[in-house]
Amino acid sequence: MKILIINGPNLNLLGRREPGIYGNNTMASCLDALRQQYSNIEIEYFQSNHEGAIIDRLHEVGFDESYAGVVLNAGAYTHTSLAIADAIAAINLSVIEVHISNVHAREAVRHHSMISGVCKGVIAGFGLDSYRLAVEALSAK
Amino acid sequence: MKILIINGPNLNLLGRREPGIYGNNTMASCLDALRQQYSNIEIEYFQSNHEGAIIDRLHEVGFDESYAGVVLNAGAYTHTSLAIADAIAAINLSVIEVHISNVHAREAVRHHSMISGVCKGVIAGFGLDSYRLAVEALSAK
Amino acid sequence: MKILIINGPNLNLLGRREPGIYGNNTMASCLDALRQQYSNIEIEYFQSNHEGAIIDRLHEVGFDESYAGVVLNAGAYTHTSLAIADAIAAINLSVIEVHISNVHAREAVRHHSMISGVCKGVIAGFGLDSYRLAVEALSAK
Amino acid sequence: MKILIINGPNLNLLGRREPGIYGNNTMASCLDALRQQYSNIEIEYFQSNHEGAIIDRLHEVGFDESYAGVVLNAGAYTHTSLAIADAIAAINLSVIEVHISNVHAREAVRHHSMISGVCKGVIAGFGLDSYRLAVEALSAK
Amino acid sequence: MKILIINGPNLNLLGRREPGIYGNNTMASCLDALRQQYSNIEIEYFQSNHEGAIIDRLHEVGFDESYAGVVLNAGAYTHTSLAIADAIAAINLSVIEVHISNVHAREAVRHHSMISGVCKGVIAGFGLDSYRLAVEALSAK
Amino acid sequence: MKILIINGPNLNLLGRREPGIYGNNTMASCLDALRQQYSNIEIEYFQSNHEGAIIDRLHEVGFDESYAGVVLNAGAYTHTSLAIADAIAAINLSVIEVHISNVHAREAVRHHSMISGVCKGVIAGFGLDSYRLAVEALSAK
Amino acid sequence: MKILIINGPNLNLLGRREPGIYGNNTMASCLDALRQQYSNIEIEYFQSNHEGAIIDRLHEVGFDESYAGVVLNAGAYTHTSLAIADAIAAINLSVIEVHISNVHAREAVRHHSMISGVCKGVIAGFGLDSYRLAVEALSAK
Amino acid sequence: MKILIINGPNLNLLGRREPGIYGNNTMASCLDALRQQYSNIEIEYFQSNHEGAIIDRLHEVGFDESYAGVVLNAGAYTHTSLAIADAIAAINLSVIEVHISNVHAREAVRHHSMISGVCKGVIAGFGLDSYRLAVEALSAK
Amino acid sequence: MKILIINGPNLNLLGRREPGIYGNNTMASCLDALRQQYSNIEIEYFQSNHEGAIIDRLHEVGFDESYAGVVLNAGAYTHTSLAIADAIAAINLSVIEVHISNVHAREAVRHHSMISGVCKGVIAGFGLDSYRLAVEALSAK
Amino acid sequence: MKILIINGPNLNLLGRREPGIYGNNTMASCLDALRQQYSNIEIEYFQSNHEGAIIDRLHEVGFDESYAGVVLNAGAYTHTSLAIADAIAAINLSVIEVHISNVHAREAVRHHSMISGVCKGVIAGFGLDSYRLAVEALSAK
Amino acid sequence: MKILIINGPNLNLLGRREPGIYGNNTMASCLDALRQQYSNIEIEYFQSNHEGAIIDRLHEVGFDESYAGVVLNAGAYTHTSLAIADAIAAINLSVIEVHISNVHAREAVRHHSMISGVCKGVIAGFGLDSYRLAVEALSAK
Amino acid sequence: MKILIINGPNLNLLGRREPGIYGNNTMASCLDALRQQYSNIEIEYFQSNHEGAIIDRLHEVGFDESYAGVVLNAGAYTHTSLAIADAIAAINLSVIEVHISNVHAREAVRHHSMISGVCKGVIAGFGLDSYRLAVEALSAK
Repeated sequence: MKILIINGPNLNLLGRREPGIYGNNTMASCLDALRQQYSNIEIEYFQSNHEGAIIDRLHEVGFDESYAGVVLNAGAYTHTSLAIADAIAAINLSVIEVHISNVHAREAVRHHSMISGVCKGVIAGFGLDSYRLAVEALSAK
Repeated sequence: MKILIINGPNLNLLGRREPGIYGNNTMASCLDALRQQYSNIEIEYFQSNHEGAIIDRLHEVGFDESYAGVVLNAGAYTHTSLAIADAIAAINLSVIEVHISNVHAREAVRHHSMISGVCKGVIAGFGLDSYRLAVEALSAK
Repeated sequence: MKILIINGPNLNLLGRREPGIYGNNTMASCLDALRQQYSNIEIEYFQSNHEGAIIDRLHEVGFDESYAGVVLNAGAYTHTSLAIADAIAAINLSVIEVHISNVHAREAVRHHSMISGVCKGVIAGFGLDSYRLAVEALSAK
Repeated sequence: MKILIINGPNLNLLGRREPGIYGNNTMASCLDALRQQYSNIEIEYFQSNHEGAIIDRLHEVGFDESYAGVVLNAGAYTHTSLAIADAIAAINLSVIEVHISNVHAREAVRHHSMISGVCKGVIAGFGLDSYRLAVEALSAK
Repeated sequence: MKILIINGPNLNLLGRREPGIYGNNTMASCLDALRQQYSNIEIEYFQSNHEGAIIDRLHEVGFDESYAGVVLNAGAYTHTSLAIADAIAAINLSVIEVHISNVHAREAVRHHSMISGVCKGVIAGFGLDSYRLAVEALSAK
Repeated sequence: MKILIINGPNLNLLGRREPGIYGNNTMASCLDALRQQYSNIEIEYFQSNHEGAIIDRLHEVGFDESYAGVVLNAGAYTHTSLAIADAIAAINLSVIEVHISNVHAREAVRHHSMISGVCKGVIAGFGLDSYRLAVEALSAK
Repeated sequence: MKILIINGPNLNLLGRREPGIYGNNTMASCLDALRQQYSNIEIEYFQSNHEGAIIDRLHEVGFDESYAGVVLNAGAYTHTSLAIADAIAAINLSVIEVHISNVHAREAVRHHSMISGVCKGVIAGFGLDSYRLAVEALSAK
Repeated sequence: MKILIINGPNLNLLGRREPGIYGNNTMASCLDALRQQYSNIEIEYFQSNHEGAIIDRLHEVGFDESYAGVVLNAGAYTHTSLAIADAIAAINLSVIEVHISNVHAREAVRHHSMISGVCKGVIAGFGLDSYRLAVEALSAK
Repeated sequence: MKILIINGPNLNLLGRREPGIYGNNTMASCLDALRQQYSNIEIEYFQSNHEGAIIDRLHEVGFDESYAGVVLNAGAYTHTSLAIADAIAAINLSVIEVHISNVHAREAVRHHSMISGVCKGVIAGFGLDSYRLAVEALSAK
Repeated sequence: MKILIINGPNLNLLGRREPGIYGNNTMASCLDALRQQYSNIEIEYFQSNHEGAIIDRLHEVGFDESYAGVVLNAGAYTHTSLAIADAIAAINLSVIEVHISNVHAREAVRHHSMISGVCKGVIAGFGLDSYRLAVEALSAK
Repeated sequence: MKILIINGPNLNLLGRREPGIYGNNTMASCLDALRQQYSNIEIEYFQSNHEGAIIDRLHEVGFDESYAGVVLNAGAYTHTSLAIADAIAAINLSVIEVHISNVHAREAVRHHSMISGVCKGVIAGFGLDSYRLAVEALSAK
Repeated sequence: MKILIINGPNLNLLGRREPGIYGNNTMASCLDALRQQYSNIEIEYFQSNHEGAIIDRLHEVGFDESYAGVVLNAGAYTHTSLAIADAIAAINLSVIEVHISNVHAREAVRHHSMISGVCKGVIAGFGLDSYRLAVEALSAK
């Protein structure tokens, strides 16, 4: 069983960017821990700052039944990209929306998600543990 | 370590109410499974259709350090109760907002939560598994 | 055949409260007249100022097929309570929304009902006769 | 005693138009039943797809005291016609707004009525029985 | 020189309708006085409750240079009819929007006019004298 | 096979009205060209400034299977008439919404159509060629 | 009989400011013509760019019964000054709101007037002739 | 003379809850000081987290002329409860709305009060001294 | 100790202006009573209809520690003046916002205050007694 | 003569994605049919999920007079991309906006187009036949 | 060449007012530095807390060709004064809008400027250096 | 010292695109002039129509202390890209938002900037001179 984790814009700066909001840990250490805990799952990782590249990647895996699903932190595109929402609706895999911070405790522009309605579920506010909970949710199916 | 699960209005009808949205399982079987899996945690349960009773219950446990936190599915009060939000902000415990259904895929009135901003995090859309993921999150602290 | 009439907040003051809007008659005399005219129907009555108590009562009768339905004047909760709306959607009985005054001829906050969409129908503006019309409608099924 | 029933645009298609929403019965059979049940009342009927013709008709009867009132299903004009609302306010007769379907359970554009505020009352959601309840209400005056 | 006065819906009831707002005078006496004062102007009068009939009439005179202009009290259509606004924009004559009452001191729905932007000017709030001021304005050109 | 073209308010002035927006051609020459190009189709034409008359006409043809569909330029009623939208939804024929000008490049009030949602499709901005494209679309079925 | 004409901000530039909107005539020539035509009326004039000065002036004349009323072109304060509206409501004189241009054909910010609701009436769009029509209206009382 | 002070949801936590906003003093010491200063007034106190219980209490005292009035800090229900507003309008006593913090300097959701319009007056922002000012106001009648 | 009372636009007309809303008492008698009751406080008074003059006055006293604070009834500027709000935020003195009438029971435009957020507190609805309560509040510091 | 057809995000999945909305045909077969019918036109095709790539492509052809125009189905970018709208406005070619489905019969977010105002025209709702109608429109110039 | 710098309300307190936002420097030292750097330009300075006085000043210089333009920091009037905007539009000089702080990083009420649309350009966020950049811009013409 | 100038979508067409708005000069000549005037600063230039590429570029330089800052004209992305705003907030360099045209004098969609709040300052409306003023501002630090 495979799971793809996709990180959207600016999430390549994790550990470096606004640590008050996003913490000091890097995505690399997070992935290491996940792969150790869920050793029977092949956890792929993809990050891009390009809306189109995220759509391309969703298409590539979206009809491949060897995936249990996608864990997607679309970053700022969460709030502006109908195109990513359409990609999620178009493919056959379950997608789980995750956020590191509690987006609802931040600026109003982050309170509305374009993609929640087409995702299977939403997990937000647990720091990097949000990714683990999403993997846990997909592996429990 | 103790965790309190609070269910709000109409959630006493789980298994009986609109199974297309909420599924056929009852809260009782969900609690059984949780207590089995997390046998080292004392999992309490409280349900009420009364906004005031939920606030009373939050106050009762809110300053008790033997709790790891509260898992709260406030049902419809999620979208209308500033008083519950104030109770969450007033107490010392972490509260996790959970929803059985993906509220963002339902009517617009369910897209805005009054309480998300004062909760630690949000988990929505995984059926009764949402409760388990919340317990998992609290136990991981 | 039974019918339950539920009155929400402040409707215990009928005959005493703002008679310019609500008239001088009491609910007691209204119920007497109804029970006389519809002598083959058992007409129950419940009033509460508590949102949760109204939900509890809806649950109690909501799966009991000896009821033809519920006549509900939710008072101010008409305009604020998603939780009562959810209770109506969750039960099996028909619920008819009634109002004594013509809510649309009053302040803007009373022009939108949270519960109309999940009720069978709406009757408003006929004074206490609104209750009789609702009983008439249920008895005609 | 006379009562005038006015049906607005597209209601000439009753029994033929979207039966899922409006049912299979025709207005003719509804009027037959009404005239039989309320044999002491002269029930007139007028239908038009023209906003102006409905206003003209309201003016014609509006100052004639032999009418107990008007039962008006203004169809789509309910939601767009301030001119019909003004006509209702201008005349001396009571007008009851009726709807076959529960307009509040349909599209948002049907949730606001231009005419409710100047009508005596509103009855909606009881199929063709809405007309009978309105006649009942007028005859009870 | 000719001037056409057009009155829209419900204005045929002037003198009879809501005298607290519209006064007790009839349009007939108003026209008499106008024709006396402006004896060198041929003052035509047209009233209709039909939006389409008002448009038809505007087209009939709209390209006839013997008219100095049109005085239009569109009644409730002032606030809802883009079609009348389009007719005004389409013709060559100046149209003056008049109102008997001060529409801005009434309900919010009467504060916005669909047609003001395509009229030459607006005169409102002077009772039937509004018509005279409009004729005065057109005759002064 | 027959096709009915309906033009709404002010479109009788084509060739005469605001040529900067609507061009100099008349509807008559447009119909001539269409009947020549689509000689196997009987192309009927109806214009009215009356909302009700357009609804009446839609009803007359709406259940007649000898029509391939209706081409409707509802003019300003496009943006204000829920009653025409209901008529389109009520009948069995396909209706294509057309506009001569690109309504989206004009005032905001023309950006929202009441009828698009119940039409088969929309064609706007091609001058009188919009009618030909709509006939082409219907004939291609 | 006296009438006070008040001009608000930037109207001291008439004849000099944006002649495409406001024309080439000056207020001085307008006043000359008015005083000639209405020789039995004492026409006073006051202009200020200060909101407070306009309020002061309204207070000074507002309880003096030798005035038939005030003609007020409040310029931009029309759209922003609740304080001037309160002054108009506080005094005993009739105030007529005038505008040189047709404010409804200009930017949206000029479509709403703070003061119309407390004025006797509104005259807009007739160039400097708007002032004459207002004097005419006051003298006709 | 009696005065009833009612505190709404979460105000039982005063002195314990968010001291940065609500201060360190308890309601008990506040009541002691009040009873000492206003020794000729019987000051009753009621606190509840239940919207319905607050309504019940308002009804109990609302027609009792031995009360000079009610001092009500409805907490979060200030912003959401039309039912409490209706209770205030229904009773005969004056109700003064008080707030400890300056609600206008906090989140937008606290800027609108459902109950201000039916209260005699509003006092906000003076810490626990707000209660004293309200008692002062009632005692001055 | 000194306290400055500032009254904004139209409040010079107190006792004379709309007595149904503002009562018959004058500010002079109110000040007399205040100076008698609070004889140890030097109570200054300033009224202006000019927004700028109010700002100037706030600056003059705003850094003078001999003042206990300012009592400000900004009248209509309460709802429109960000500049006065900025002045209040810029100075060192506490400012208390007062209103004679209950602004929340009046037109919607008076429901929002530009200045509440930067004032220490708000007192509204007690007639001229509002000023006394504000002085009481400042003297209690 | 050349025509460029551009498809935006997710349209590479045609035939595979939500066939209930988009049908079973592929773009390849659509292009084949078009090239056969319009054999004298060179029909180019470009698809990308990248907003920037669509802009790049519009620039490449936008000043080349050998193109009759562009047929653009911008998919979800229709509703979110001001940058594509700016590109269309910046180039010299006519662009026709097409949609396969009737976007107005879908979710509200698809009812507003960022690009319609700068396109020559809009064709929506005809399935893949929308592309043919657009080519027809361009070839008719 | 002359340049007039106008500062609006509360800017006389620079160096004294909220130094966290506006810094510790005074306008005097800023003007000294400017006059030194741009010794060939006569730099005039005007400050007022009165909206009307700013308009008066704009009129005084607005048609004088010896000025290269005006540098205007309208303070809070930026967001509320249509009258100043009209003054800018009425005169012949270029006006540059400046702000010391980055208004877009502050409260929402400061995000919209009434005057930007009629100014030549906007410079905001550079502290007192904003004035220098504006002078630089005007001198570069 | 280095400064990076970034131009967003469609700005590669400068000198060629809508010269009425953007002028006839090219970016190349603008850069030449800048490099000549600021010969001690290394001025880099980057243009892309891809939102993601702009983010990538911001990341590349964003933690490099040899840069004095970034001058960013994000074009249409100014108004739609939260992702670019997040990138600006995430990096350590100062970013200055510039616009060639006065965006506030154009369509409403260009009046709101997603990025202003996280930039150091904004300069708009000075044609290509806006870039020079931004460089001047950065070099002055």
